[in-house]
Amino acid sequence: MGASKRLEAGITRNDREMADGRTIRYYDTQGQARNIADQRPVEEQPGIGELRLDPLVNEWVVMAAHRQGRIFLPPKELCPLCATHADLLTEIPESDYEVVVFDNRSPSLRPPLGDWALPDLVGPDTDAGTSAGKCEVICFTADHGQSFKDLTPARVRVLIEAWQDRVRELSKESFIEHIAPFENRGEEIGVTLAHPHGQIYAYSYLPPRVEKMLKAASDFNSKTGKNLFDEVVAREIRDEERIVARNSEWIAFVPYAARYPFEIHVAPLKPVADLAELSVEQSDAFPEVALEVMKRLDGVFGIEMAYIAAWHQAPVRVGRDLLRLHWQITSVRRAPGKLKYLAGSESAMGAFIMDMKPEQSAGQLRDVKI
Amino acid sequence: MGASKRLEAGITRNDREMADGRTIRYYDTQGQARNIADQRPVEEQPGIGELRLDPLVNEWVVMAAHRQGRIFLPPKELCPLCATHADLLTEIPESDYEVVVFDNRSPSLRPPLGDWALPDLVGPDTDAGTSAGKCEVICFTADHGQSFKDLTPARVRVLIEAWQDRVRELSKESFIEHIAPFENRGEEIGVTLAHPHGQIYAYSYLPPRVEKMLKAASDFNSKTGKNLFDEVVAREIRDEERIVARNSEWIAFVPYAARYPFEIHVAPLKPVADLAELSVEQSDAFPEVALEVMKRLDGVFGIEMAYIAAWHQAPVRVGRDLLRLHWQITSVRRAPGKLKYLAGSESAMGAFIMDMKPEQSAGQLRDVKI
Repeated sequence: MGASKRLEAGITRNDREMADGRTIRYYDTQGQARNIADQRPVEEQPGIGELRLDPLVNEWVVMAAHRQGRIFLPPKELCPLCATHADLLTEIPESDYEVVVFDNRSPSLRPPLGDWALPDLVGPDTDAGTSAGKCEVICFTADHGQSFKDLTPARVRVLIEAWQDRVRELSKESFIEHIAPFENRGEEIGVTLAHPHGQIYAYSYLPPRVEKMLKAASDFNSKTGKNLFDEVVAREIRDEERIVARNSEWIAFVPYAARYPFEIHVAPLKPVADLAELSVEQSDAFPEVALEVMKRLDGVFGIEMAYIAAWHQAPVRVGRDLLRLHWQITSVRRAPGKLKYLAGSESAMGAFIMDMKPEQSAGQLRDVKI
Repeated sequence: MGASKRLEAGITRNDREMADGRTIRYYDTQGQARNIADQRPVEEQPGIGELRLDPLVNEWVVMAAHRQGRIFLPPKELCPLCATHADLLTEIPESDYEVVVFDNRSPSLRPPLGDWALPDLVGPDTDAGTSAGKCEVICFTADHGQSFKDLTPARVRVLIEAWQDRVRELSKESFIEHIAPFENRGEEIGVTLAHPHGQIYAYSYLPPRVEKMLKAASDFNSKTGKNLFDEVVAREIRDEERIVARNSEWIAFVPYAARYPFEIHVAPLKPVADLAELSVEQSDAFPEVALEVMKRLDGVFGIEMAYIAAWHQAPVRVGRDLLRLHWQITSVRRAPGKLKYLAGSESAMGAFIMDMKPEQSAGQLRDVKI
């Protein structure tokens, strides 16, 4: 038996140990017991990966060679994210579940053994480090055939509570500097498991894009005394034409300089640094806007859109007053049968070219009947 | 009739005006005349696009909405990059050619009309600019079915002369700050025309990745007095295990912290800032290494690899002593039938995870029999 915990909105969390020592956390609304043990034979855990510095841009690259053999688009009967059933012992020992979060079986980042520190940056002479951090999987529902947009508001409420809980707990680890819960959806972007789920990457370093956001927010604050993201949201509200959804606590808009054919940022109207800081009112109001946005996205072409939906938040220890929580949803789908690819300009130079005006995609999203 | 010019290695350049006013440049080894006029009806030129600042990271995003309707994977008979033939008036009026460079018909970046300047960066209040710059197309051969690796060494010699010539000329434009010749190859990365060709993007701003490389090189130089890229190359030569090809003037290696399953950097052993600075000896020695590298890449799995091959060089006006010319070839192909996708970690956070050790892919590349 593992720990049990009571969260907001009548949600409970029960922790259980998996056969190989990993932890699975059940987030439930009915106080379910969750006592079924993991019956699978114990497999050896992969080792920790390497962290190498790309000195040309001073960015860490994780070398996780052990991930090469991971499972790729299994048929539904063999889905490891479904609840355990007569034909298969899955990652989830129970025969049903609401939301679960468990430690990734092939993690890119893992908790370090003993003391840990990032190597000093000294250009090409920088030592290799170990890829400390933590990777978790979050399953949104036991129903293999659903998508985020098909979830009930009550289920999305459990989801945001689970995300908050994970951020609170992971933030306590001394080796974790930044936490990014995200969902990848669609074979077009390489999703290897069709079951509706997301991931939580907890990095031991500031990811390059976060570092850059922190620099921009810090420079802006030094110059103006204002918070950059708050000003961005204020401008979107003023411009109005790119807003796609809003309620009393949240606003969703296509950003003024979107880089993807469909890109939506969802932010709380009362700014917070991270998921852990969301009020109960904000969490309660999230499902409505989140579901509306996802329904609009799938409604544009009447097909399931490939997307990445990533929570951006302030890092665990730095920039707490500078960076703000928001959810960035980006889709490379330009049209049915057409994707935007990141080729020479975007990939090699980092220079994005958009073939579509953000006002146009915002209009298309607003026009969807939901 | 347009201008004619004599370059190195017996190569001539003849400029002709296309029907819609664009310029086509023929690079030839036999002094061909190239007098056939473009017979096509004149089409209206698209307008210049917008440049918008993404204030969250202080990066410019080009809005080129006019590019949406561009041609997508036409059959060979309708290929606009083939020489003109009985059934089709193509972009190249002549019935044969060696290497041509012409102004892109749907350019993301275009020369500005009159005075031009980048707007001042003031966060979300930054004005929109116009996407000044220039986009050119470079065709490697009239033979539709070839790839770079199938070119003769003599043809690659013409190619590198043409690249140098374009960099020299584009560098003179006051609105151009950085020049990036690159080739995208493979439907997997969204190539819309199968004909062997590359592109030249001349930006009116420092592309984000170049800006970051400049910062890293500048910081390293301030601390050590040394050139970062020279030290990187010295380290690769010392380590030896990631070298995949070399001759008297060039070296090709998988970088220590590669981010793609197959990634090769090709650099001159005597460092130069940009293509324009290459010596005749360096240009003469380039085809051997370039062809070896491309043959090794296609040889790994015995299939045509999707890749981006991009020239990185010092910007036109800044960092001339800090950044060095090199050619970065990156492939998302992990295995036959398997691609690396940039999903949540890479795309949203900028944090790359590699499933394969650079030493492993270097070994696979070296093992190819060519």
